[in-house]
Amino acid sequence: MIEELAREECLRLLQQESYVGRVAFIAGGRPMVLPVNYVARGDGIVFCTGEGTKLSALRDGAPVAFEIDASRPLYGTGWSVVARGTAREVTDEAELDLLRRGPLVSWASPSPEHWIRIEIEEISGRRLPEA
Amino acid sequence: MIEELAREECLRLLQQESYVGRVAFIAGGRPMVLPVNYVARGDGIVFCTGEGTKLSALRDGAPVAFEIDASRPLYGTGWSVVARGTAREVTDEAELDLLRRGPLVSWASPSPEHWIRIEIEEISGRRLPEA
Repeated sequence: MIEELAREECLRLLQQESYVGRVAFIAGGRPMVLPVNYVARGDGIVFCTGEGTKLSALRDGAPVAFEIDASRPLYGTGWSVVARGTAREVTDEAELDLLRRGPLVSWASPSPEHWIRIEIEEISGRRLPEA
Repeated sequence: MIEELAREECLRLLQQESYVGRVAFIAGGRPMVLPVNYVARGDGIVFCTGEGTKLSALRDGAPVAFEIDASRPLYGTGWSVVARGTAREVTDEAELDLLRRGPLVSWASPSPEHWIRIEIEEISGRRLPEA
């Protein structure tokens, strides 16, 4: 049976157990979802992106959902965490300086130059244990 | 540098290289994203779900985006495929009968009873090769 995960466990999984998440947003009235590598601290998720669909849809306070998961297909088991919140481009120079010196480097090369922060408003998660 | 994947390669990855995808949709005016185990054949993606958010948002011809990916974090490499299309509940009895006898069994238990098919309208993918 599906287990609901506690908020603390969801935040731990988000902060420590995943490198890649999927950000869902609305672009041109339709849903879109793209993978990003990210870091999470406190109640925020940060990733970087270049000019493009993600940046134009997300820079100005857009509602987003952010998902991470892990699964063991042979066993039909896994867990997932979904956070919902608001995305905004980071524009504060002091914060940008900290981010640029931090551990998050985009896997894309040349490295994109815009940083998006998602402020988490709700988070929930589920685990499917081995039958 | 990022490589764009050809449509045939995107369909091959969707059909043969992944068990779990993430379906993004709009619920209550906000984006949502949830993982599902799925099968893909031809231009369609099928998954099953129980009563809940996914089913009520997706049963009647909703626009969706569907994402799969794989990554090797140590190397900063990976690939992703995003399909966009329209979701509808499968209601045809002959098709339901085929689906119920097919290989797709939900990992959730007891098995949910509704089948959703996404008709793919666009598909694209990217690969980040090792630097």
